[in-house]
Amino acid sequence: MKIVQCVPNISEGRDLQKIERIIEPLRHQEGFKLISYEPDKDYNRTVITLIGDPDKMIIPLINFVQKAMEEIDMNQHHGEHPRMGAVDVIPFIPIQEMTLDECVNYAKSLADHVSFMYQIPVFLYAKAAQVKERESLPEIRRGEFEGMKEKIQDPMWKPDYGPSFIHPTFGVVAIGARLPLIAFNIDLNTMDEKIASAIAKAIRQSSGGFQYIQAGPATLVERGHVQVTMNILDYKKNPIYRILETVKMEAKRYQVNVMSSEIVGLLPKEAITDSLKYYLQTEKITFDKNMSFETIVELVRTYLLFRDFDIEKMIEANL
Amino acid sequence: MKIVQCVPNISEGRDLQKIERIIEPLRHQEGFKLISYEPDKDYNRTVITLIGDPDKMIIPLINFVQKAMEEIDMNQHHGEHPRMGAVDVIPFIPIQEMTLDECVNYAKSLADHVSFMYQIPVFLYAKAAQVKERESLPEIRRGEFEGMKEKIQDPMWKPDYGPSFIHPTFGVVAIGARLPLIAFNIDLNTMDEKIASAIAKAIRQSSGGFQYIQAGPATLVERGHVQVTMNILDYKKNPIYRILETVKMEAKRYQVNVMSSEIVGLLPKEAITDSLKYYLQTEKITFDKNMSFETIVELVRTYLLFRDFDIEKMIEANL
Repeated sequence: MKIVQCVPNISEGRDLQKIERIIEPLRHQEGFKLISYEPDKDYNRTVITLIGDPDKMIIPLINFVQKAMEEIDMNQHHGEHPRMGAVDVIPFIPIQEMTLDECVNYAKSLADHVSFMYQIPVFLYAKAAQVKERESLPEIRRGEFEGMKEKIQDPMWKPDYGPSFIHPTFGVVAIGARLPLIAFNIDLNTMDEKIASAIAKAIRQSSGGFQYIQAGPATLVERGHVQVTMNILDYKKNPIYRILETVKMEAKRYQVNVMSSEIVGLLPKEAITDSLKYYLQTEKITFDKNMSFETIVELVRTYLLFRDFDIEKMIEANL
Repeated sequence: MKIVQCVPNISEGRDLQKIERIIEPLRHQEGFKLISYEPDKDYNRTVITLIGDPDKMIIPLINFVQKAMEEIDMNQHHGEHPRMGAVDVIPFIPIQEMTLDECVNYAKSLADHVSFMYQIPVFLYAKAAQVKERESLPEIRRGEFEGMKEKIQDPMWKPDYGPSFIHPTFGVVAIGARLPLIAFNIDLNTMDEKIASAIAKAIRQSSGGFQYIQAGPATLVERGHVQVTMNILDYKKNPIYRILETVKMEAKRYQVNVMSSEIVGLLPKEAITDSLKYYLQTEKITFDKNMSFETIVELVRTYLLFRDFDIEKMIEANL
C-alpha cells in the first residue's frame, strides 16, 4: 500500500475555532488519517500532519486550501515564524512503497488544481523545484508575505503555477516533495534572543556548523523563553543527541541551560532510538533496539528532554 | 615587510641525525627563521616551520629538497600518516603584507625549480591548484607513494610540473598556497582505533559533521593510545573549543576520555584566545583579550589540554 506523509503548515496558531474550521475537510476521510495539528501561539502557525494514501488526499487538500483562503487574511497576520501564505507550505514525504519522484507528481497535481481554482500562485520547492533557487524554502520565502507583492513580478520569481501576482489575502504557497526531516526546537531558560541566535549560528550549516542543520532563534513570549528552532535534514548524519549536546555546551558560556526540547510534527522511531543509544551507552545501560513505543516515550523525557511527546509522534506508530 | 609561513613536511620522523642533515640548508639563513621541526615517530614524519621573507626562502628550500632526495628512500618508508614523497608537501601561507595570490606565485616558482633540477613531479594544490580535483591534498595523495607510479600515468593526474613518472626514491611532491590552518590532534585513553575512527567521522565535513574539519584516526604505538587527528581549516567558524568538547561528548559513549591534545606546527594567537574565552565564560572568569603569551600558555594546559605547548607555537610570538 502506497503511504505518504503530508505536512501542510497554516498561518494561524491562535484562534482554535478558526483552525478547526480550516482542517475540517481533512477529518474523517477515507484512505488517510489526520494524525495531529499543533497550533503554536508565538509562531501563530499550525503544523498539520496527514498520513495515508496520496490519491485520497488531493481533493480534501484542495478543499482545505479553500477554507484557509476564506478564514485567513495575511494582511492581519503576525507571528514569530517567517511565512508567505495562508497555507504556507505543503510537502509530500514518501513513507512506504513510494518514491520521491512519485511525491513530486502529487505535488504538481495539487499545485495545478489550487492555482487554477483559486488563482493562488504556487512555487514548487525542495525536490519538486524546477530550478536550483527554489530548492530552498527560506530562499523562496525571503521577503515574506509583505515582500512577495513585488518579488513575484521579478521574472526570476515567476510562480511555477498560477498568476504573477499574489492572492490579496492568501498570498502564495509552496508545494513540494522531500525526504523526512525533523523539526526540532531546543528551549533555553532565558528571554535573550541574541543567545539563541548565537547558538543557532554555531550549529547551522549556513554559517559553518553541522552540514544538515538549518537553525534560527525564536522568542516564545507566551512561554517566557527563547528557543533554538531547527530542521535536521539528515538525522543519520547529524543525530539529535549530537545537536542537543552541542547546544548545551554552547549555552554554558552564557550561563544558560537547556530546559527542554520539542519535536514538531512526526519523526521516524529510528531517529529517537539512535540517539537514546548514545545516552544509554554513556551510562553503560544495555540498549534494546526493539524497545516498545511506551519505553521510548519514557526514555525521551529523561534523555532527550522532549516535552509534549507521545507515541503518535513516531511515524511507525501510525501505520 | 612581506612575511610568509612555510611548512614543509618530510617523510622521516625517526632518524634524528638524518632529519638534522635534511634541514641543515634551512638553518641560520638571512631573512627567515627556522621556527621549529617536530619529528613524530608514529607518523614517521616531521613538520618543519619557517617564517620570514619568501624571496629569501626559495633557494634554501631547493637545497633542502635535494637533501631530502639524497637521504630518504620512499620504498623503505612506513608510518601512520598518508604520504607520497620524501618531501610530501610544501605550503606557503600569507602572514603579513602578503596576498594568497602572491603565495601562489612563490609556490609556482619553487615547483618550477625543483622539477627542473631534480626531475621530481610536482602537483600544485590548495589555492595554487590549476584544476578543481587538485584543491584537496588527500585527493592528490590517494594511492600514496606506492600507488603513484600508476596514477601519475593517468592523463587526469599529469603533474603540473616535471615528468609523468615518479622519482624512483623521492616520489612526488605537492606545493601550494593556503590560508593558515590548525593541525590539531586529540588524544584518547584507548588503543582502539575504531573509536578514533567513529569520532573522526562524527566531526568531519566529508561525512556530515562540521564544515571546516578534516579528520581521521591514528594509533600512536610509542605513546600507547589513539588520537583523532585533524585539520581545522577555518578556526573562526569551527573554533578549537567546540571541536574539543564535541570529541569529549562523542568519546563518552565508548567510556573513553580525552587525556590531552596537541597542536602540530603554529597557530594564530587569536585561535587560542577565542577558545579560552569560551571556557572562562562558562566559569564566569573575566576574559582579558590582551593577556600575555605566558598567561595563554598556562591557560591552554588547563582548558584546551595542549601538551608540549610553548610560546613559540603562536605565530605572533615569532614576528
